[in-house]
Amino acid sequence: MKLNRTLLLSVLLITLFSCNNKTENVAEESEQDGHPKLILTKKGVKEIRAQLGNIPIFDNTLKEVQEEIDAEIALGIDTPTPKDYSGGYTHDRHKRNMVVMQKAGVLYQILDNEKYAKYVKDMLMQYEGMYKTLPVHPKTRSYARGKLFWQCLNDSNWLVYVSQAYDCVYNYLTEEERNKLETNLFKPFADYISIENPQFYNRVHNHSTWGNAAVGMIGLVMDDEELIQRALYGIKDLEMDKTAKDDDGGYINKDGKAGFLANIEEPFSPDGYYNEGPYYQRYAMYPFLIFAEGLHNVRPDVKIFEYKDGVLLKSINALLNLSDADGDFFPLNDGQKGMSYYNSALVTAVDISYHFGGQDPGLLSIAKQQNKVLLDDSGLAVALGIKEGLEKPFEKKSINLTDGPNGTQGGVGILRNQGIEVVFKYAAQGSSHGHYDKLSYSLYERGDEVIQDYGLARFVNIEQKGGGNYLKENKTWAKQTIAHNTVTQNETSHFNAKFETGSKYHPELHYFSSENESVQVASAIDTHAYPGTEMLRTMAVIKDEDFEKPYVLDIMRVTSNKANQYDFPYYFLGQVLQTNFKYKTPETLKPLGNKNGYQHLFLEGSAKAQSDNSKLSWLNKGKFYTLTTVTSNADNLLFTRIGANDPEFNLRREAALLLRRKNVKNTTFVSTIEAHGGYSPVTESAVNSNSNIAHLKVVLDNADYTAIVITNVNGVSKLFITANTKQDKGIKHKLTINNESYEWSGSYYFK
Amino acid sequence: MKLNRTLLLSVLLITLFSCNNKTENVAEESEQDGHPKLILTKKGVKEIRAQLGNIPIFDNTLKEVQEEIDAEIALGIDTPTPKDYSGGYTHDRHKRNMVVMQKAGVLYQILDNEKYAKYVKDMLMQYEGMYKTLPVHPKTRSYARGKLFWQCLNDSNWLVYVSQAYDCVYNYLTEEERNKLETNLFKPFADYISIENPQFYNRVHNHSTWGNAAVGMIGLVMDDEELIQRALYGIKDLEMDKTAKDDDGGYINKDGKAGFLANIEEPFSPDGYYNEGPYYQRYAMYPFLIFAEGLHNVRPDVKIFEYKDGVLLKSINALLNLSDADGDFFPLNDGQKGMSYYNSALVTAVDISYHFGGQDPGLLSIAKQQNKVLLDDSGLAVALGIKEGLEKPFEKKSINLTDGPNGTQGGVGILRNQGIEVVFKYAAQGSSHGHYDKLSYSLYERGDEVIQDYGLARFVNIEQKGGGNYLKENKTWAKQTIAHNTVTQNETSHFNAKFETGSKYHPELHYFSSENESVQVASAIDTHAYPGTEMLRTMAVIKDEDFEKPYVLDIMRVTSNKANQYDFPYYFLGQVLQTNFKYKTPETLKPLGNKNGYQHLFLEGSAKAQSDNSKLSWLNKGKFYTLTTVTSNADNLLFTRIGANDPEFNLRREAALLLRRKNVKNTTFVSTIEAHGGYSPVTESAVNSNSNIAHLKVVLDNADYTAIVITNVNGVSKLFITANTKQDKGIKHKLTINNESYEWSGSYYFK
Repeated sequence: MKLNRTLLLSVLLITLFSCNNKTENVAEESEQDGHPKLILTKKGVKEIRAQLGNIPIFDNTLKEVQEEIDAEIALGIDTPTPKDYSGGYTHDRHKRNMVVMQKAGVLYQILDNEKYAKYVKDMLMQYEGMYKTLPVHPKTRSYARGKLFWQCLNDSNWLVYVSQAYDCVYNYLTEEERNKLETNLFKPFADYISIENPQFYNRVHNHSTWGNAAVGMIGLVMDDEELIQRALYGIKDLEMDKTAKDDDGGYINKDGKAGFLANIEEPFSPDGYYNEGPYYQRYAMYPFLIFAEGLHNVRPDVKIFEYKDGVLLKSINALLNLSDADGDFFPLNDGQKGMSYYNSALVTAVDISYHFGGQDPGLLSIAKQQNKVLLDDSGLAVALGIKEGLEKPFEKKSINLTDGPNGTQGGVGILRNQGIEVVFKYAAQGSSHGHYDKLSYSLYERGDEVIQDYGLARFVNIEQKGGGNYLKENKTWAKQTIAHNTVTQNETSHFNAKFETGSKYHPELHYFSSENESVQVASAIDTHAYPGTEMLRTMAVIKDEDFEKPYVLDIMRVTSNKANQYDFPYYFLGQVLQTNFKYKTPETLKPLGNKNGYQHLFLEGSAKAQSDNSKLSWLNKGKFYTLTTVTSNADNLLFTRIGANDPEFNLRREAALLLRRKNVKNTTFVSTIEAHGGYSPVTESAVNSNSNIAHLKVVLDNADYTAIVITNVNGVSKLFITANTKQDKGIKHKLTINNESYEWSGSYYFK
Repeated sequence: MKLNRTLLLSVLLITLFSCNNKTENVAEESEQDGHPKLILTKKGVKEIRAQLGNIPIFDNTLKEVQEEIDAEIALGIDTPTPKDYSGGYTHDRHKRNMVVMQKAGVLYQILDNEKYAKYVKDMLMQYEGMYKTLPVHPKTRSYARGKLFWQCLNDSNWLVYVSQAYDCVYNYLTEEERNKLETNLFKPFADYISIENPQFYNRVHNHSTWGNAAVGMIGLVMDDEELIQRALYGIKDLEMDKTAKDDDGGYINKDGKAGFLANIEEPFSPDGYYNEGPYYQRYAMYPFLIFAEGLHNVRPDVKIFEYKDGVLLKSINALLNLSDADGDFFPLNDGQKGMSYYNSALVTAVDISYHFGGQDPGLLSIAKQQNKVLLDDSGLAVALGIKEGLEKPFEKKSINLTDGPNGTQGGVGILRNQGIEVVFKYAAQGSSHGHYDKLSYSLYERGDEVIQDYGLARFVNIEQKGGGNYLKENKTWAKQTIAHNTVTQNETSHFNAKFETGSKYHPELHYFSSENESVQVASAIDTHAYPGTEMLRTMAVIKDEDFEKPYVLDIMRVTSNKANQYDFPYYFLGQVLQTNFKYKTPETLKPLGNKNGYQHLFLEGSAKAQSDNSKLSWLNKGKFYTLTTVTSNADNLLFTRIGANDPEFNLRREAALLLRRKNVKNTTFVSTIEAHGGYSPVTESAVNSNSNIAHLKVVLDNADYTAIVITNVNGVSKLFITANTKQDKGIKHKLTINNESYEWSGSYYFK
């Protein structure tokens, strides 16, 4: 009743004012009401306008956005009846509309040109007209169907963007218009994605983060405390089914946690590692940060950037460190390759981190590469920083990132040295997007994959490929252990590929050492992937003066209570140049197995190891690589190629060399991978195309120590010893190998 | 006797002068003797010295060369006893030495610093010491073994470079030193690669061109008329075995032609197309042009740049036009992919073409991309041109290049429109490096291969792969017809893969039309690849306003005197997105055949065509493509992958869709290939991912005309008619199709 009277009064007042000079009135109102306030602020707009024309990267971004939006305005507005999955027209159009509205709103504020406000208003009104009678989206595949889109997730994306647009044109709209939009569109929209879809909203998951941010941001704009509380803490007094699962097989809400703060609390480790991996962190980053920015501006009392010891800003640093030399994120878990810090979510992340964090000049160099800034206060700060020449290179060094809310659930160690990067994954399951690959790794050289992690089996947003969604090969191949560079025991995946089991356990860090610039080591242990079996993997990147480039030393020590078959693949990318073993290639290609991912591997060649070191050299993107691995005559060497049982060509036809060791209890896989030389098809010269390692020998391997001698082609030998038990830095070790005695302090010895 | 007295006198004189101021004496001598004169000239050196520090691209090149050579000088001189094949140490070292000497010689002239001259002298003297007793190279694989290298070809390379070095330090040396070098090294060296190896020297082949240039250039420096004559006209009074063949199966000297001029005469068509294709033209270019430059400077009476209507300069233009948007040469015949106009031979070509040709400002833009110039008079001209801002873009348009000495042996037509390039090969055999692929094509978009030509099966200079030489798969796969985008009849290659037969015949141009910017057409006919069968292929690149990008229309009309099986592959690169036909993928992969290249193809999927149009969409490097091909229910569609019977992983695992039509006499393959839209893994948005063609229909197909209707998804139809017989531009056509009558002049109709 009260509401209706206020509404009536407003309508009357607005009607009166409308007869006068509307623009002036709008400006006046703007000062009173305090919009924009969410992302752009009134103060920020003032400063931006004062600097315009004088801040190149900002000016250029603005110009591009203006051209883009002017073109959209010229095309006219379309808000089609929802119908398609990702990649289809209605999906893409609504997705585009949300971005276009957000940008048009910003243009209105910065350029003070009403055409942009009118465009936003007109489109919002079309949505208002449609939404009030809109049924649930006709496509049924999602566990939480949206209305504009086939899943609530996309509806939430929409509201996160549109809240910003609404904030920008708030004062341009009459109160009547605002009431209409809030009553028929925003409030029911927020309710639909939260109260009506708790299985989507009330959980700890990147989907929910979008939901929380959507509800919270529109709440901040509308000054609706109930929505803000719902965003921060989840739906009040709701009991959830603790056993329910989502489409991907993940629990929906096992422990009853929900809301934006819980979504910060749970998935981020204290180091800022996001439990699903960088691809999903990138996706989640935008709602985390944009809602945080909004909270910071509108509700500074929440102190969001200080929450959990400042983890949101730390997470940006972690994310940037989870990218290769080209800025591409490592495709851990269900990550799509090619996603990089050029994604607009990372423009948000970098600008916010710079502005609200410590003005790290390294971030400016990334912003410069991105060649784009946010059109808001933080983007202005970055643009000014670049203009003033404050930028420094963003140096990515070796880094260990813990996983788990308290940093105690394993982690990811990245070893870096002169362009060589080893990404060593000893993290927890990684939620529903996790893969069964404990202690796996991938290897990069200057942004090129050398030993690859397959990533996901999906063509995101390409409708022709399963509607742009996960393909069945994601589960049958990409998630399986054999798809990864780690040990597969008896042709079964870690945790038997059981999500519940995998989610219970995680490896433990053994040690991480990056103090020595020449020898960087990460070591971790797993005791749960295969019950009764312990795997201790130690990976080192060693820069030895006698080698052209740093090489990788990989020691995987497997101890079991029974005899097993162990498969140990190397997913090398590139073309085979040479082996030191004779292999046979079959006339017909057959799958290597019939389940657990093996059904997707063709056997392309096989050999018995013929010496104590087996070697494979290959060429990839103009660079040479050599694997040297310690073998015995009982070992099998199998060349495999992905692509069997792939009836729709969903998988990439890529190779591996698979070292198979049968019927042993305990064994240690010891290998080096060298990057060396290069080949140019323009000069046709091959430089340093041969391995520099003459011999690799395990001189000691027991419960306490593993010791490896690496001898180069000039006969110079180096000894690497890793402590398998007492690995603490402070501990002193004394050891005799072949009548020579060695003494050292710390986790490893190298000389 | 006379020689000896002169020599004695010289020694005396030199000895006397040596006691005085040697440098002054050298300068004096230099003026008298006229060295350098071959590539650098005295006048040029003077001008270069005057401009130094003021010609950025030249200065930078000079600086790089100086750093490179200073580093080499610091390393010391090594002239190891010859031992290895390509890629091995002794091979690479001698190859490096020749380049280093040439550059050091140039540095001596430009920088006037004796240390470079001394370095050249010292190295030459080491060679002199070694060469006089050097046996034939121990490796026996070549039909013409060298001494420093395993083949005379490389020895010739060496002499071409070293002649230049010798010219540069000529006046620095005493006459005694010169006599020593000429007597013990240069003269016997020139004789060895010519008189002692006529099977290498006395023929028309790119190998011989190097030999001729080597002999000629040292002849020019030494002022040895006999050598110059031998270079220009071949070995005097020599009878060759007309039936002998080289390692690659090519005739050594079937028609008795030899010498540099014959080597210009034979392989170049009047348009400047080189019969072996661009990869070999690039390789041959350097000796052609560098010797020509030398002749021009020392023997202007030969008028070498005017020879055969200026074909040498024309050939540079042809070669540049045989590259894709990135400057990579189309890998016709045995071409290795990745070779491009960034190769140093093309720096030579571009600079010489600019300086001695018409100062085409387009060449300056390529020189700028190359970021390097020759350190001689022509490089100076280019550097000055760039400095003065004269450069214009080098525009590559559609072009038809005739093949054969008189331009009457077929050719290569390149159709270009807005980033789409079709390379249509209707050339002659292409000498021993030719492939059996009459009327084949490859398709590029902005430098990326879309429908590929496989190129060669070889890893040039990578020793691990067959010593860097041709692999056996080059013959069993790359040369075979099924490896190419053309018709294979009854699973046998064109000309039954017989070199002699293939060398006798060539297709004929039917018509080439590039006047209309929107419709570019090439059409050619072959009647010899399969006796009794005629193939008429018409390829068009059409830019229709209703399409986002130009599309390719391909009409291959086959007429035979008997029923055959026709295989028609599309070697698409990228990943299958969608087909409109259901295919089955076998559990095990088997080779498609057992010979003629079929043994290298695995069958990955098969289907019966299910409609009158079969469609395949794929994604490659972020761009979408769709093939639409006219089919009947009798047609088979086979997915193949290269790699069967490849025991050393020499072949790339790449795909094709193969349209198989069995037991028909006459048939026409009609297809369109559309490039459309794109996908970004950073934004994850798929734009225009669907084909714009709803239907493709053959409405008329007889001896005189073939007519195709292309209907797009909006129902708009276009008609393309090609004249199968009376194709002359001037001819008027009148035709009725489905009661509609069409009248036009010219080879084709499109509306």
